[in-house]
Amino acid sequence: MRQALYYDDLKVGDTFTTGTFEVTAEDIKRFAREFDPQPFHLDESAARDTLFGGLAASGWHTAAITMRLIVESGPPLANGIVGASMKLDWKTPTRPGDVLHVVNEVVELTPSRSRPDRGTVVMRSTTLNQRGDIVQSTAGTLMVSRRTA
Amino acid sequence: MRQALYYDDLKVGDTFTTGTFEVTAEDIKRFAREFDPQPFHLDESAARDTLFGGLAASGWHTAAITMRLIVESGPPLANGIVGASMKLDWKTPTRPGDVLHVVNEVVELTPSRSRPDRGTVVMRSTTLNQRGDIVQSTAGTLMVSRRTA
Repeated sequence: MRQALYYDDLKVGDTFTTGTFEVTAEDIKRFAREFDPQPFHLDESAARDTLFGGLAASGWHTAAITMRLIVESGPPLANGIVGASMKLDWKTPTRPGDVLHVVNEVVELTPSRSRPDRGTVVMRSTTLNQRGDIVQSTAGTLMVSRRTA
Repeated sequence: MRQALYYDDLKVGDTFTTGTFEVTAEDIKRFAREFDPQPFHLDESAARDTLFGGLAASGWHTAAITMRLIVESGPPLANGIVGASMKLDWKTPTRPGDVLHVVNEVVELTPSRSRPDRGTVVMRSTTLNQRGDIVQSTAGTLMVSRRTA
């Protein structure tokens, strides 16, 4: 068990780098069959003639894998990773065989006025592949418990 | 096969309402085990003592179901639903037994300056449950092919 972090433990600039996750072609197709059944996510040859030029993961799959990495090995926030809103950019597609990791940085801390037991944290999460290409970047507003709660 | 829509076919204010999808407790837990393994998404009794007060779907699960509904029965865009960026708000959690649908509205149309074969479309997608509560709202920037391409 990693030491839980509260709002009061965080500082702007704190950085948390996750472990890695390898994405297979089968993962990409399975996610797509359930949630994003479009040719460029389902089948290598159908994907070739699309703007992706080959099989690519659904952006929502990249987002879900990013969440998994953050939950498993990102900042161990005391009340869990609970987001209210999110700005999300997909920069380049996740491809079969890509090995992803996520760099998380605290960019803003705001104590709640109405709820003394919590604060909001803006965290920037950058998901990179094994070549260092950014596949996704997000800025999410998280609700984090205070130590004094 | 529904009639494909190109950039040139869309007008600001056009609205596309999807079919529905029922979310089960088992769906919520299965998604969470793979992508968001936190107590409030995994187990009814563990969820009771969290800020969710009971089992709740991962926000990323709500987002993925929203995508499925849009792909299946949202606007049938000629080149598929391809997003580059997204603003996402989770308003209230998706709960076991919720029946979701999505209302999509075209809010902005911008022809590409550099690529005459495409334009960008800002689409607002509001995901509602069977009581009319908004569980998620997004504003996404989509790349859409022009009819002249």
